[in-house]
Amino acid sequence: MSTDTPPTGPPPPPFGPGQHLLGVGQLDRGSLGGLLDLAESLRPVGRGEQVCRVLTGANLGSLFFEPSTRTRLSFESAFHRLGGSVVSTTGFTFSSMAKGESIHDTARVVSGYSDALVVRHPDTGSVARFAEASVVPVINAGDGSGEHPSQSLLDVFTMRAELAARGKSIDGATIAVLGDLRYGRTVHSLLAILGLFDEVDFRVFGPPALALPVEFFDLVRASGNSIVECDSVQEAIAPADVIYCTRVQKERLSEEDEQEVHLEGDLLNRAILDEAAGPESVIMHPLPRDSRHDSFDLSPDVDEWPGLAIFRQTDNGLLIRMAIFSVALGVADRVLEDLRPAPWLTTR
Amino acid sequence: MSTDTPPTGPPPPPFGPGQHLLGVGQLDRGSLGGLLDLAESLRPVGRGEQVCRVLTGANLGSLFFEPSTRTRLSFESAFHRLGGSVVSTTGFTFSSMAKGESIHDTARVVSGYSDALVVRHPDTGSVARFAEASVVPVINAGDGSGEHPSQSLLDVFTMRAELAARGKSIDGATIAVLGDLRYGRTVHSLLAILGLFDEVDFRVFGPPALALPVEFFDLVRASGNSIVECDSVQEAIAPADVIYCTRVQKERLSEEDEQEVHLEGDLLNRAILDEAAGPESVIMHPLPRDSRHDSFDLSPDVDEWPGLAIFRQTDNGLLIRMAIFSVALGVADRVLEDLRPAPWLTTR
Amino acid sequence: MSTDTPPTGPPPPPFGPGQHLLGVGQLDRGSLGGLLDLAESLRPVGRGEQVCRVLTGANLGSLFFEPSTRTRLSFESAFHRLGGSVVSTTGFTFSSMAKGESIHDTARVVSGYSDALVVRHPDTGSVARFAEASVVPVINAGDGSGEHPSQSLLDVFTMRAELAARGKSIDGATIAVLGDLRYGRTVHSLLAILGLFDEVDFRVFGPPALALPVEFFDLVRASGNSIVECDSVQEAIAPADVIYCTRVQKERLSEEDEQEVHLEGDLLNRAILDEAAGPESVIMHPLPRDSRHDSFDLSPDVDEWPGLAIFRQTDNGLLIRMAIFSVALGVADRVLEDLRPAPWLTTR
Repeated sequence: MSTDTPPTGPPPPPFGPGQHLLGVGQLDRGSLGGLLDLAESLRPVGRGEQVCRVLTGANLGSLFFEPSTRTRLSFESAFHRLGGSVVSTTGFTFSSMAKGESIHDTARVVSGYSDALVVRHPDTGSVARFAEASVVPVINAGDGSGEHPSQSLLDVFTMRAELAARGKSIDGATIAVLGDLRYGRTVHSLLAILGLFDEVDFRVFGPPALALPVEFFDLVRASGNSIVECDSVQEAIAPADVIYCTRVQKERLSEEDEQEVHLEGDLLNRAILDEAAGPESVIMHPLPRDSRHDSFDLSPDVDEWPGLAIFRQTDNGLLIRMAIFSVALGVADRVLEDLRPAPWLTTR
Repeated sequence: MSTDTPPTGPPPPPFGPGQHLLGVGQLDRGSLGGLLDLAESLRPVGRGEQVCRVLTGANLGSLFFEPSTRTRLSFESAFHRLGGSVVSTTGFTFSSMAKGESIHDTARVVSGYSDALVVRHPDTGSVARFAEASVVPVINAGDGSGEHPSQSLLDVFTMRAELAARGKSIDGATIAVLGDLRYGRTVHSLLAILGLFDEVDFRVFGPPALALPVEFFDLVRASGNSIVECDSVQEAIAPADVIYCTRVQKERLSEEDEQEVHLEGDLLNRAILDEAAGPESVIMHPLPRDSRHDSFDLSPDVDEWPGLAIFRQTDNGLLIRMAIFSVALGVADRVLEDLRPAPWLTTR
Repeated sequence: MSTDTPPTGPPPPPFGPGQHLLGVGQLDRGSLGGLLDLAESLRPVGRGEQVCRVLTGANLGSLFFEPSTRTRLSFESAFHRLGGSVVSTTGFTFSSMAKGESIHDTARVVSGYSDALVVRHPDTGSVARFAEASVVPVINAGDGSGEHPSQSLLDVFTMRAELAARGKSIDGATIAVLGDLRYGRTVHSLLAILGLFDEVDFRVFGPPALALPVEFFDLVRASGNSIVECDSVQEAIAPADVIYCTRVQKERLSEEDEQEVHLEGDLLNRAILDEAAGPESVIMHPLPRDSRHDSFDLSPDVDEWPGLAIFRQTDNGLLIRMAIFSVALGVADRVLEDLRPAPWLTTR
């Protein structure tokens, strides 16, 4: 059985109560705004200052067919924070699938144990096939080079919150995007979802061998936003409200790519920021970043930069995932009624 | 230390509050009926429509010394559904046992953390030895070619429910059993536990090299039921109320067996059903089934058959495991008093 | 990046609400006494006779960078017993760290998901570095040859409880310490923490190649207690109130050591006890013990000895870990107000 063929059939319906979340294309500007507002309201729960128990008795199946520790922990923590329990598989394989079980059977069986599933799989389209057989909502936690919608949503959520704190909004913002523009799934998804906003100016810079594929220039322009390719990091970041950095995933480069790329030094460091960036610039990164010397990533020497938002960004992932579960399980309205103060000490 | 010797001593006492569940021999027709009735009452909890919190504060230790993902998830979900929490080990080894720790010490230590244990182990009899040293009830989740009582119980539960929905009962039913009759633990356990019922007619068919051992013919007849060996699938299923299929576990065949068996095509498919089976026939399978071409298993082309019960059967596993925990922890009576509606949306 | 350099900077502050627990040096006699009293009050919760829900809604991150199944299960069960939920990683590696992520980033990210972290790591000092970047309290569950404070605390707790049951106290007790005195982290920590008590007489015996390093003789004497090296097990245990045995961790011996050590027979068995020990002697062991023949460990033939406390000792680990979490999260006072009877049957 080939597991790498995208599913056929109509695109998934809009995301809402009882629905799977397979990709950000299921959201429009209205439903996206509602989801982000809900995530914002859950901030005290994410910080352990308030307790929410609306999903007490609900059970999440967390199925990771490839390892992604932080994504798994974030999803599982989010379900716990709403009061639910989690059963989890963390291995590379599913013991029954080695015995010839189809994705259909596996999905149907394990969906019978839970009220929702989170599924990560290395093959593009396999999470959608999984969802077809599931009797409960499936949240896509990444399927190879396909979608990873909660990552895109936490990026937009962070951008909105950081810009709002500086009296700005995503509409009208200038956003520099740096790093691997060719293979970076996160970058591609970000450009797509920001098509829901108006008058966004993108300024992109990456090594020539990792340049942004032409269809993404077309995508941005078709949505009414603008995009320019820059010749240096400095040129990209100078007018930027937000600087979005990404790691070059060397494990995805071909040998030919590697010879061409010659990555040395830092993608971005404090000296470059001091030279070129505005003092209010927000720095984002989907993490993990490669902090080793000469890794061509965001240098740890930027960690004192006032606009560094990379850890608030990962913290926000918990809030977005709580919001996703709340919507999928139809309890978005009840969640806020159920909040109560946490009795323990918080140190954040 | 040999770990493959069955434990000596008297057979385990009848299953009830505070007792281990090591094998189905611990149940008689009365206690079996009570357990199945309890499982039936928990159906809305298993479907996520009602919430039960009677085990809030209780902790389950889930110890899988060999992988069995679906069995583990089903047991852990069942404990969660009753309100309890779970600690879990999913690896092949227990790090302390590699340092020369005895099963006795391991069992005594980990039983001290929990209110109940679920144990899966590749060696026959090892779960019973584990139970001897445990200070809390141990549920056997499969010990090699030994027992796997929750599987047998969910099979009987499903048979009872499916037959009842068709105005029939297990007493007086005709049951075809197909596939690997020689090594299939599930088949052997099913024949044994159905000895508690009356006037059951078994019709068995498998490849000659995988025929049912003679002692199981004797066992069925000693219980007052009847059994015939058939020459074809068609002959076996024609008068059957229930068709119970099993996968040939090729990993258990010797080389000699493999040469003799020549398995090709399907064990059962839609064409055979249309030719030979009654339209009300219930199809069961312990899963996983091998859905690959020529796997000599239940073909996916039967999935539209009205009596296909294989997914209801796996869903029922959750209910049976909730019932088992409720009995072992002495809360069977309280469980039903504690039910309340779930606040979230269910899509089943 | 070298991960084996201890962190620089001041020693960690005294253990209390909102603080990390990195080593037993953070406790003085007063705070130690309070922690042990709290653990004692939680005994009915540890035995599943009472339920505590004070941490309902709190989330623990359980991060084991090397396997230690029983320690992990004990910590996770303790958090559950207080009402909290747990997210857990059990593998040898953290998938993002393989991509060049620093301990700082990993710690900061995962601490954002939880209200407390338990961290086990093979490198000395790495848990302290982890704690520096965490936004929530970190409990050290063992860092190589460094600290494992919950083990030391459960040892002292057990000693106090066992001696109290015999009308004695740690002050004024005679304690034999047997086994690997050279590499045994548990022994070194025990000698250090018992420096908080008065008039303790230590009698130590181990194979010559595994003798106690001279600095520990100095440490004991500097704290005002006394210590003698004995020539035989019999000489060490004869006047002892407590006999603390340890396993020789053969995996830590050099080849030279192994040639010198010649370990045969038992470290301690029933015949030696009957010959030399007082009938009230308490036997302790941090477990696991190596129960194989000629393992030079505590023989299983002592299991009927009236003072055998090794399983009470491991049970006590759950109580100590509940007490540690209660203090770190600032709910020590609330825990006891929140107890209620458990509705299920207990068999202990």
